[in-house]
Amino acid sequence: MTQSQGDGPSRRALIGWGGAGLALGAAAAGGAVAVTRGGEDSGPPDAGAGAAVAFHGPHQAGIATPVQDRLHFAAFDVTTTDRAEFVRLLKDWTDAARRMTAGKAVGEGAFGGLPEAPPDDTGEALGLKPSRLTLTVGFGPSLFRKFGLDARRPDALIDLPRFAGDALDATRSDGDLCVQACADDPQVAVHAIRNLARIGMGKVVIRWSQLGFGKTSSTTPDAQTPRNLMGFKDGTRNIAGTETGRLEKFVWVGEKDGPAWMTGGSYLVARRIRMHIETWDRTSLQEQEDIFGRDKGEGAPVGKAKERDEPFLKAMLPDAHVRLAHPDSNGGATLLRRGYSFTDGTDGLGRLEAGLFFLAYQRDVREGFVRVQRNLATDALNEYIQHVGSAVFAIPPGVRDQDDWWGRTLFSEEA
Amino acid sequence: MTQSQGDGPSRRALIGWGGAGLALGAAAAGGAVAVTRGGEDSGPPDAGAGAAVAFHGPHQAGIATPVQDRLHFAAFDVTTTDRAEFVRLLKDWTDAARRMTAGKAVGEGAFGGLPEAPPDDTGEALGLKPSRLTLTVGFGPSLFRKFGLDARRPDALIDLPRFAGDALDATRSDGDLCVQACADDPQVAVHAIRNLARIGMGKVVIRWSQLGFGKTSSTTPDAQTPRNLMGFKDGTRNIAGTETGRLEKFVWVGEKDGPAWMTGGSYLVARRIRMHIETWDRTSLQEQEDIFGRDKGEGAPVGKAKERDEPFLKAMLPDAHVRLAHPDSNGGATLLRRGYSFTDGTDGLGRLEAGLFFLAYQRDVREGFVRVQRNLATDALNEYIQHVGSAVFAIPPGVRDQDDWWGRTLFSEEA
Ligand code: HEM
Ligand code: HEM
Repeated sequence: MTQSQGDGPSRRALIGWGGAGLALGAAAAGGAVAVTRGGEDSGPPDAGAGAAVAFHGPHQAGIATPVQDRLHFAAFDVTTTDRAEFVRLLKDWTDAARRMTAGKAVGEGAFGGLPEAPPDDTGEALGLKPSRLTLTVGFGPSLFRKFGLDARRPDALIDLPRFAGDALDATRSDGDLCVQACADDPQVAVHAIRNLARIGMGKVVIRWSQLGFGKTSSTTPDAQTPRNLMGFKDGTRNIAGTETGRLEKFVWVGEKDGPAWMTGGSYLVARRIRMHIETWDRTSLQEQEDIFGRDKGEGAPVGKAKERDEPFLKAMLPDAHVRLAHPDSNGGATLLRRGYSFTDGTDGLGRLEAGLFFLAYQRDVREGFVRVQRNLATDALNEYIQHVGSAVFAIPPGVRDQDDWWGRTLFSEEA
Repeated sequence: MTQSQGDGPSRRALIGWGGAGLALGAAAAGGAVAVTRGGEDSGPPDAGAGAAVAFHGPHQAGIATPVQDRLHFAAFDVTTTDRAEFVRLLKDWTDAARRMTAGKAVGEGAFGGLPEAPPDDTGEALGLKPSRLTLTVGFGPSLFRKFGLDARRPDALIDLPRFAGDALDATRSDGDLCVQACADDPQVAVHAIRNLARIGMGKVVIRWSQLGFGKTSSTTPDAQTPRNLMGFKDGTRNIAGTETGRLEKFVWVGEKDGPAWMTGGSYLVARRIRMHIETWDRTSLQEQEDIFGRDKGEGAPVGKAKERDEPFLKAMLPDAHVRLAHPDSNGGATLLRRGYSFTDGTDGLGRLEAGLFFLAYQRDVREGFVRVQRNLATDALNEYIQHVGSAVFAIPPGVRDQDDWWGRTLFSEEA
């Protein structure tokens, strides 16, 4: 299932919703009952902006599903060397993710369980809607090394080469695992990562994390295209969640691609890209538009009138970003972009530490990000940006049903 | 005016809105026309969540007006020593703030002006609603020193004393000036701070800034009380924006308080409070509830059934946060709290750098924050939190009309 379910999660996924009102009363009195995160609501979560996105399906949600407004992304390192313990964690995480994406609290909730025990859920998302929360898990190259799984590591999951201009900070790069939490309410996304981290205590540790406050791409092309922090519409020519053909071709790993455990999965490249916004803001409108090869107001390609008009690449300067990034300049290579803007305070020099947390999904990292990024070596934009963090992950297929769990195809079908 | 205007800004404040549709067309073609940030809209901004909050009034907006969902807070240092230049900046800032809070772009907009000049507005908020943006300016103690205004510095604006447990980071503390940007859309808040910083280039420099992703207090008591990152309802007994009596008594500087230029203003204390959430999450429900003196689910005071029931302090442990913070334990001292939760990545030790960016408004810092914070020296909560940033600002009165500007009463009525 690649789409948000407008009508909320299935009844089956919502066992336990029924008595929420009751449960809340009992819980306030210290009773040990499961409560839904929805708190006072007594029915399934609302449709619309607050709705739930289906957790089960052939692909993980959070890739082709509509892009939510906010992001909390975390990379984890695995500290346990016990494979069975790690598998148990993946199962526990899956249970928690299933509950949280449906708008429910983890386990017995924030005030279930025994009063002398810590609550199962940290509670700050109580009463909030599911907010289209999606949780998407990925495995980094180092995870395969850690668990002696090199033979099962996909060829398509390469260690990224060094690119011209890279200034990578190791403390904001790599990771054995990642979880991408997207939601329309940031508190819901932050709550999800925090509770997964908590469940993982003693087995995994957060290596780095990134908050994204505004989406810079969309997978629903009819909506208003969001603007990035350079003020330009971003994601115009992105793959839409409804373009099944392009998704099969460029995003989902097919049966023939191998390895078998990755069928229905994808690969994610995450790049923390700092923008020198103070310099950008002193650049003329003309130069800004030349750099992208699109105009700032409408977002139309050079020489065209409307945002969605087909770009005519030869009308653009040779080093224009859109010209260099376009599939025609890259042997057809096409990415599904799902990035977010960030602002992380100040850099100590009086400048806002702001930029784009670039997230791209693809069927093969070599034919996707690596190809395009190599071609961007001469990008005029490079004067205004710097890649400061980098990571790559294999995104396993979706969790099929109530009994399935994240990573099962990798960890239980081993030869 | 202390309330959000449900019906949008006055027509007078909206000169220029009329031809937005036309303007956009011309601008896309490179024309030099003023455009509204509302882009495609041709009327005034919507009412409701996207609405505009009135900028003009006896008090600055962003204090007693309803609390928005997101925050971007910036402290600036003044680098110019030329008082006239600084006053010009305050006027330019006021103009920009007036436009942005009405949902309009700064100056000629993101694609107005000459193509060979940098645009007046950075553009990333184009097409977004006003989103109840408020911009609230404040003057730190060091500003008075810088401009030789010590004689006009209010007695109530003290340099904060050191409190037990403080672990303040100088790079996240103090500042000559502050701007608090609150909005329901973070992109709108970030855009506002960035454009003010840009206008101030060469005259002021950002000293530190803080993004807040979720409000932890509300000034509209009928709404659902938000939860902080400890999972508790926060702001229950806050001053409501409609309680004129309590506002006059505890928040607004009165004529008799002096100095005259502060009449209608207030004082702001900002504290960046880190939470040790990993430790907190291992604490039992009972202990968590004992620490606050309220239960986690409903938010009711110890021994009471409902959140809004009057706290009975003697039923709480002597070191319970609510007991120690309550006016009855502080000679009546009462604060208007307007804080936000933050998560700023990871601390390098695998822990989320999360907490509360505490913001409190009061009529006198000595009788407000200092009094309560001193009493919190024995707070049971202190084991789980640490104050790591601190600043204090005099918040001048509101901008009265189109000709008025931020700080006029301080800078132009000097004896
Ligand atoms: C801060 C860095 C970046 C900014 C501000 C940026 C901005 C933009 C903008 C404004 C567009 C035009 C609208 C659209 O079609 O989406 C665009 C297009 C595109 N960008 Fe970027 N981009 C950045 C980095 C990257 C990176 C690192 C890659 C991949 C390696 C990339 C790949 C693309 C692609 C594939 C397109 C679509 C080209 C087409 O099909 O016409 N971008 N980008
Ligand atoms: C991370 C730090 C803090 C947390 C998590 C926190 C949390 C809470 C909570 C949950 C309540 C009860 C609900 C309510 O009435 O709002 C409360 C009340 C209150 N807090 Fe805090 N607080 C923190 C720091 C502070 C600080 C630094 C001050 C002031 C110096 C303060 C002043 C108050 C006041 C005045 C009340 C209301 C007491 C009453 O009237 O019953 N808090 N706080």
